[in-house]
Amino acid sequence: MTLGAQNALWLTAQVLLNQRRQAAVENPCYPALRDILTQARCRLAPVAVDAAGMRPDAVPEGTDVIFTTPSHHCPTSVTLPMARREALLARARQLDALIVEDDYEFETAYLKPAMPALKSLDPDGRVIYVGSFSKSLFPGLRLGYLVGSAAFIREARALRASVLRHPPGHIQRTAAYFLSLGHYDALIRRTARAYTERRAVMAAALARHGLTVAGQSDHGGSSFWIEAPEGIDTEDLAQGLRATSVLIEPGAPFFSGADTPRNFFRLAYSSIPAARIPDGIALIAKAIAERRGS
Amino acid sequence: MTLGAQNALWLTAQVLLNQRRQAAVENPCYPALRDILTQARCRLAPVAVDAAGMRPDAVPEGTDVIFTTPSHHCPTSVTLPMARREALLARARQLDALIVEDDYEFETAYLKPAMPALKSLDPDGRVIYVGSFSKSLFPGLRLGYLVGSAAFIREARALRASVLRHPPGHIQRTAAYFLSLGHYDALIRRTARAYTERRAVMAAALARHGLTVAGQSDHGGSSFWIEAPEGIDTEDLAQGLRATSVLIEPGAPFFSGADTPRNFFRLAYSSIPAARIPDGIALIAKAIAERRGS
Repeated sequence: MTLGAQNALWLTAQVLLNQRRQAAVENPCYPALRDILTQARCRLAPVAVDAAGMRPDAVPEGTDVIFTTPSHHCPTSVTLPMARREALLARARQLDALIVEDDYEFETAYLKPAMPALKSLDPDGRVIYVGSFSKSLFPGLRLGYLVGSAAFIREARALRASVLRHPPGHIQRTAAYFLSLGHYDALIRRTARAYTERRAVMAAALARHGLTVAGQSDHGGSSFWIEAPEGIDTEDLAQGLRATSVLIEPGAPFFSGADTPRNFFRLAYSSIPAARIPDGIALIAKAIAERRGS
Repeated sequence: MTLGAQNALWLTAQVLLNQRRQAAVENPCYPALRDILTQARCRLAPVAVDAAGMRPDAVPEGTDVIFTTPSHHCPTSVTLPMARREALLARARQLDALIVEDDYEFETAYLKPAMPALKSLDPDGRVIYVGSFSKSLFPGLRLGYLVGSAAFIREARALRASVLRHPPGHIQRTAAYFLSLGHYDALIRRTARAYTERRAVMAAALARHGLTVAGQSDHGGSSFWIEAPEGIDTEDLAQGLRATSVLIEPGAPFFSGADTPRNFFRLAYSSIPAARIPDGIALIAKAIAERRGS
């Protein structure tokens, strides 16, 4: 058990990486993961993500650990198809690399059955699995977990003990009761119904206003990855929209390297009632149109 | 806010120490602190503790950071007197060292008013203060805190964000309400009444059975530091007593160095009803007598 997925990723990086090792990460990827790996001082190999997620053949030679978000790629939300899952495991075997599977939003597969986790397809124990309850139960819960070999978990646990001892005992106990009594499964079903409606409303509004969806999961998820027209800086767009109570997440921080695109943003529908979505999309479209005109 | 005092000490060590720096620690001291400092790879200078706590004049030249537990020394429980507090601050000034004040069990001053914290006597901002609610509220809570300069807190917060983001939000909120509504003060007073009785009962039983108290606070605390006769290995004693439902804490892990005494142990009264204490002390005395006879 860890203090959320963040803590699981941090512990994993500390145990597996150092200056002599290379980590492959998706590009774009979760910015805090890049910070963790930079602090671990390993070599970083960004691997471009396309409309089906991470490309296994693009994971470079010399990679020791591959970090991936197959259920829903962060931030584009795309789901790694079965063939890519098998290819990624084969590529890891070829490189004798480990895979850290951050199974981000695995529980939001409400349009299609969830794909099998890499961990479940892994006969030779090279996948370390990272999960979290911090999003699906409630924000700020800070409860995640790691699944791996006994030797790896022993190391990670010793480090965790020194850094923070353990996640609060009563949170672990309460979450365990919540799960064992079936409330968690019921919550996921209720969440799925809400997300299904919100997603459909948002998709329709995006189409109506001609906004370009650059990434989405065919399984569900909680957000769309949007491409604004060239020349729109979404950092600036976000600042402007904030004044009208519309919050978007600029995309630039997710990208590795110097010359990163600045016209992407992430648009979540998980915490907004369906009835309020169309007005928000209209405000975004208006703000983009104004910037194009100027 | 930190995941308990453990996390506060870990963050502090990471921010302040490296291979080129020297940390002075009490000897004996909290074993997990020694582990944290060993991992930080700094030079370690153990400073002998006497009946009044850490001796400021024994803090060696070249020390960059002094770790101390002035309210109740861990594990002997002795309280650092006012003159030593002033001398320790003067010594730190002389060395241009920082002091990390782990104010362990500061809230258990029920026999005399609490001494002023080093932090409150520090005009030049060289004290970093570590506190915890994990013992006083309930075990497993994992809620602690750091008080220090803005620059230090900025560094510690950035590291905390990468390692675990933040302690669970609802625990922080619940604890804040508990404090602001006065429940915490009431709890500390109720705890003090229970500890006062349990301590008196234990002290009487120890005297009756001729056990040697090697360390205690004149302010309160939650335990006695006991010296068993020479030749008694308290690790072995603890193992034997466990079978009779008596739990003692062997003292050896608290000491630095190779040739550490093995005949000390810590005896807590915080979680045992007063009525059950005399029987337990009788069992300890009997087990020691049997070992001396054999």
